[in-house]
Order: sequence, then structure tokens, then C-alpha cells
Amino acid sequence: MTDGTKVGFEVLHKDVRTSARRGVLHTPHGDVPTPVFMPVGTAGAVKAMPNGTLEELDVRIILGNTYHLYLRPGYERVERLGGLHQFMSWNGAILTDSGGYQVFSHRELRSISEEGVQFRSHLDGSKNFFTPEKVIDIQRALGSDIAMVFDDCTEYPTGYVDAEASMELSTRWARKCREQWQKKDDGSTALFGIVQGSVYPELRKRSAGALNELGFSGMAIGGLSVGEPKDLMYEIVECTASLLPWDRPRYLMGVGTPEDLIRCIAMGVDMFDCVLPTRNARNGCLFTSQGRILIKNAAYAEDEGPLDPNCSCGTCLRYSRAYLRHLFLAGEHLSAVYNTLHNLTFYLDMMQKIRQAIQLDSFGNWLEQMENGEG
Amino acid sequence: MTDGTKVGFEVLHKDVRTSARRGVLHTPHGDVPTPVFMPVGTAGAVKAMPNGTLEELDVRIILGNTYHLYLRPGYERVERLGGLHQFMSWNGAILTDSGGYQVFSHRELRSISEEGVQFRSHLDGSKNFFTPEKVIDIQRALGSDIAMVFDDCTEYPTGYVDAEASMELSTRWARKCREQWQKKDDGSTALFGIVQGSVYPELRKRSAGALNELGFSGMAIGGLSVGEPKDLMYEIVECTASLLPWDRPRYLMGVGTPEDLIRCIAMGVDMFDCVLPTRNARNGCLFTSQGRILIKNAAYAEDEGPLDPNCSCGTCLRYSRAYLRHLFLAGEHLSAVYNTLHNLTFYLDMMQKIRQAIQLDSFGNWLEQMENGEG
Repeated sequence: MTDGTKVGFEVLHKDVRTSARRGVLHTPHGDVPTPVFMPVGTAGAVKAMPNGTLEELDVRIILGNTYHLYLRPGYERVERLGGLHQFMSWNGAILTDSGGYQVFSHRELRSISEEGVQFRSHLDGSKNFFTPEKVIDIQRALGSDIAMVFDDCTEYPTGYVDAEASMELSTRWARKCREQWQKKDDGSTALFGIVQGSVYPELRKRSAGALNELGFSGMAIGGLSVGEPKDLMYEIVECTASLLPWDRPRYLMGVGTPEDLIRCIAMGVDMFDCVLPTRNARNGCLFTSQGRILIKNAAYAEDEGPLDPNCSCGTCLRYSRAYLRHLFLAGEHLSAVYNTLHNLTFYLDMMQKIRQAIQLDSFGNWLEQMENGEG
Repeated sequence: MTDGTKVGFEVLHKDVRTSARRGVLHTPHGDVPTPVFMPVGTAGAVKAMPNGTLEELDVRIILGNTYHLYLRPGYERVERLGGLHQFMSWNGAILTDSGGYQVFSHRELRSISEEGVQFRSHLDGSKNFFTPEKVIDIQRALGSDIAMVFDDCTEYPTGYVDAEASMELSTRWARKCREQWQKKDDGSTALFGIVQGSVYPELRKRSAGALNELGFSGMAIGGLSVGEPKDLMYEIVECTASLLPWDRPRYLMGVGTPEDLIRCIAMGVDMFDCVLPTRNARNGCLFTSQGRILIKNAAYAEDEGPLDPNCSCGTCLRYSRAYLRHLFLAGEHLSAVYNTLHNLTFYLDMMQKIRQAIQLDSFGNWLEQMENGEG
């Protein structure tokens, strides 16, 4: 069910000391306060997190992976079943990526041409071909609130010439995506552009310029968190964010740690997604206000305290570190369930506090404390 | 937290047409209406079922496996952490088995003597020795509301002479267990006897007679559901149940299907445990009012209906067969979570209806309908 709202964005408040913005993203499936962290629901489900729990945590938007849903259960099937929202019984907003990054990650299985990317399924080895047009058609069939253009993602390091060629290809694909999207544009799905250009400010500038000219409902920063040093990533995020339209949401793809989120929010980023909280949870790596915990550690074998005394998630309120360690070592399904609940709560609570801090113009102080190691 | 109640049992109503009884089992961790199905919480957790969900389903008692908890995390550790209730944050009742059946199942790893059973851990191959006395000590350390005697379980088929020797060994062990239990009996843990004797009514009679003479708070029927034909199992349950004290709970161990439960309740059994609903759920085999469903079946690929239109569990209210099939095929953790919620709800709802039917003297009709294939 949608209320007919089109995707739109408002900046509600700009922090006094940093470039952080407090805003709201309007979507046909509800409003999303920004800055926002979007839990990753790769295959039509946020791993180990029931939808009801996501709702209890007031999650307003999740990310779906076009590549994964295309391969299984298939986008035509999802379309016949009423689209992704209905298929997975999720009435909040959904952003789908374009599959560009997944195809990039399985690079031994792909080959790129002007027309698109041929790749082999990691599930059964079958040959598939993604074009910019097809990727838009798939996302439309899925019924995403926000679709992403198909882009070519470079690895790190990549030389300037190759990065330039890749960025220019991404720009041509972005144009094709936009044209394909416009053919059926009824306002139900917004399309975001993706700035590429590896770690070269000059290329980022040209990419952003070309995409700004085309005009998108939102702009993403892609091609980062692929192995480059942290400082370089921050540098590129900062210079790229400053090139993006003020009145459109800015989405940093696939990043990152709690510290990354805080720093990049200070640079003016509004949207994030990352598998880190959910994947780490399944691997027994837990974020707490006192740092990371590896729950399998023998130190926790008889630790009766909660994961994080400052957390009020269902896991911390009820279970001890000793019990969570036991569940992890015993390979119980509940280990993933309880750990994911905690890690996602940690991220979502942090974002909630950041939104408040921006609103109160105290975000700069918080950032300073974190940089001084007091965060 | 316990309220100081000792374990006790009351028969509240006897069905007019069958031997079914409606009763209540009082425990230090709350009252349990019977007949009851106890979800299996092997390793200190009902697999894929958060405690909060068990509570929402009004589960009053779960089963823990002494063998598994002994090996991991270790009973002394659980004791230091305040006992199993506190360790797993479960404030309902807990019945622990004695490990006899688990040791029996791993028979290539064990050797039996008068003193007890030597076995190798299925986790690390380490040598361990269970005696009747030790098994009582372990269950006391775990803080079980109901402990079971250590028994020797025969496979099917077993000749009369071997079955007789095994039953007599179990009887001697039961006496030792009772003596060990009495040494520290403060009313906080009840001890149940286990009738053995394979498929021989004469041996079952002698076993029950000897155990009745020793006197236990409840009586279990063990050594069934080990490969014998269904009719033979029913025959043995019927003859054994009739030998058990009227005023004590009767517990049929490790059985079984919904049909098994209904039939054995009609024979006067009050308590059941079985991994079937939870294990089948994880394997994608779902119980419904219209029969069993294998969710991976291609027939459900685009089936938008619920698993069971007559079920009001969270899974059936929200998700389609098509989506549940997708989660199963994609290997998502949520597949186990949603399927387990459904299967357990199916069992628990059935038990609730049976208790009502017994109370209203309509259980016999229900049984007839089921036998005529109308159930």
C-alpha cells in the first residue's frame, strides 16, 4: 500500500559547526528521518531480523539487492507476486541497489562492455547480462521506492586513466538508466545517480557535474570502501559531498563503521547502508558503547553482565554475555537473532542520537569528543 | 525465582469416553495445564524460538537435555551462573531428561556396565562416564524442576532376554537415582521414574511395578519411538499407561506426531516432548490443518496464501507460502524462525483444544473424527 506520495527530500536543519544536515526523505511508503542507516535486506529479508522486530525498532527504510533478487527468486516472480514490498510483507520504504557492486565483487565471473556486464550466477554458474536499461526494468518490477543507476565500480588501486574510462562509462550508463526510467516514470520510484571516479577528486568532480546536469532525485557516492585507506576515503567523501546538490539526499554506499557514519554525516551525507552490523552480529562481533566485543572470547564464559550496559535492546535486557557466548559456540540460530537485534539497535540508536544532536546544534561537540577518544 | 511451590499434580477432569485426563502440574516455576507438549530446548534454547515468543505462546514448560548441557557449556558452569533458568533467562518450568536416550542414540560411542555408561563426546571425542548418581547431581546443578532417572534404552528389535536384563538394570539405576535424589531433597526438584521393557507387556508390567514400589513424583514411558511399528507402540503405551498411578503425571518420552499425541492422550498420557515440530520446521516440513507441507515444493513458488489458513500464528498472519519457500531455499535464518513459530503454534494450539475438549467431555468425538480421517 502506498499513499501516493512521490519521493522527495527536505533539509530541516543544518548543523552550525559541521556540514551535517537533519532532513526527511518522503517516500510512497512513509517518511524517513535523515541521516538514516538502512539495514541491508539482501534477499528480501534483513538476515535474522523478523519484520516485526524491524518495525519495533522504527526502521523506516531497508535496502534490497537487485543482483540477489534477480537470481533468486527472480524479479519477474516478485513482480507477479505484487512486488517486493508485498512479497516480503514490508510496508516501509525500500531502496534497491543496481547490482553494479555485486557484479564488481564477483569479478572473476564477469566481463564488461559498452552495453553492459555479462556475469555468471554465483548460485548455479548460469550466464546473465545486465544492461543499464535492464537494471531499471528489474528495479521497477521489484517496485522499489528508490532505484539506483547501474554503475561500474573500480577496485582500489586503479590508475587515473582506467578510473577515468570507468567513470565515463558509468556516466553514459547513468544517462541510459535515466532515459529508461523516464519512459515509465509515474512518480512511484525515484532514481538516484552514483558518483564514481575512484580516489581522484578531479574525476569525482567531473562525474558529479555530469550527473547533476542529468538531474536525479538523489545522489550517491559509490566506489568507496573497496580497500582504500580510511583517510583517503574520508577525503573523497568530503570533496564529493560538497559537489552534490544541497536539496537532494546524499547517499554513501556500503559504508561503514559507526565512526565512518559519524564522520561522513559531518561532511553532509544523509543516507548509509552497510552489512557490517548484521554480518558482524552473525560472526559474533558486537558493537557496544565500550567498544567491540568478540563474544566467543573465553573472557565472557561466565560473564553475567549484558553485552552493553548502556543498551536497552531485547538482547541486553534479557541475556548475559555468558549465555550469548554459549549460543554462538553451540551454533544456535538464536545467536544470530539476538546478536543482530543488538548490533542493529546500536546503529539505529546512534543515528537517532545524531539526528537529535544536529537538531540541537550539538553534533559538532559530539564529533569532537569522538575524535578525542571520548565518544 | 521460584515461589517455593513443590512439584505436584492434580487430575481435574477425566474424559467420559476415553482415558484422557485434564490436569495441572504444579512446579516451583508456575503451573502447567496438562495434557502438555513440552518444546525441546536441547542446549539451553528452543532452537530458533526466542524466549519472548515462547512466553507469547503461553509455553509453561520446556525440556532441556542433560547430555548436551553437560558437554556444553558444562553443568558446573551453569550451576555457577545460577542454574539453567537463570542462565537461559527462562522463568517457566524445566524438565531435564537424564541423558540415557542421548547416550543410547550415540551407541557406537558408549559402553555399559552395572555402574553406568562410558561414552565419548560427539563434540570432541572426550571420554565421559555417567552413573545414576552423577546424572542426578548434574540435574540438580542445572536446577531442573523435574529430573528424570538414568535409564538404559533398548533398540528395536531387542530379544526378550536382553530387554529383560536392560529393564532390570534400569530398575536398579532408578533405585540409585532415587537414593541420590533423596539425599538433597528439599522439594525444589521432583524425580520421575521411567518404565522400560521394550515391546513386552510382561516386562513393562514388572518395570512399572518395581518403580511404583520405589515411588516417584511422576512416571514416564521410555524406550518407544525407536523404530517399532506404530501399532505396537500404541499397544505398549496403552498397556503401560494403565499400570501407572492415577494421581501422578504420565510422561511419554520423545513422542511424537500430532496423531501420536492425540491417541496417547486418549490412553491417559499427560506429558509429551518431541523434536518433531522444531526439527521439521528447520527442514521445511510444516504441520497444517490440511496436512503436512514441504515448503521447498515448486507448487508453492507463487502461492500467495498462508501456510495454514486456519492458523493465527505470526507467520501465517504475515507471510505467504511463496515467501517462506524463498527464505527456505535462500538458507535465511528467518526460515527457521518463522517455520518454528508456525509448527510450535500448531502443536500448542492442538493441545489447548484437546484440554478444552477433555474438560467438555467431547474429546472422544474428536478422536473418532480423526480416526475416520475427518480430523
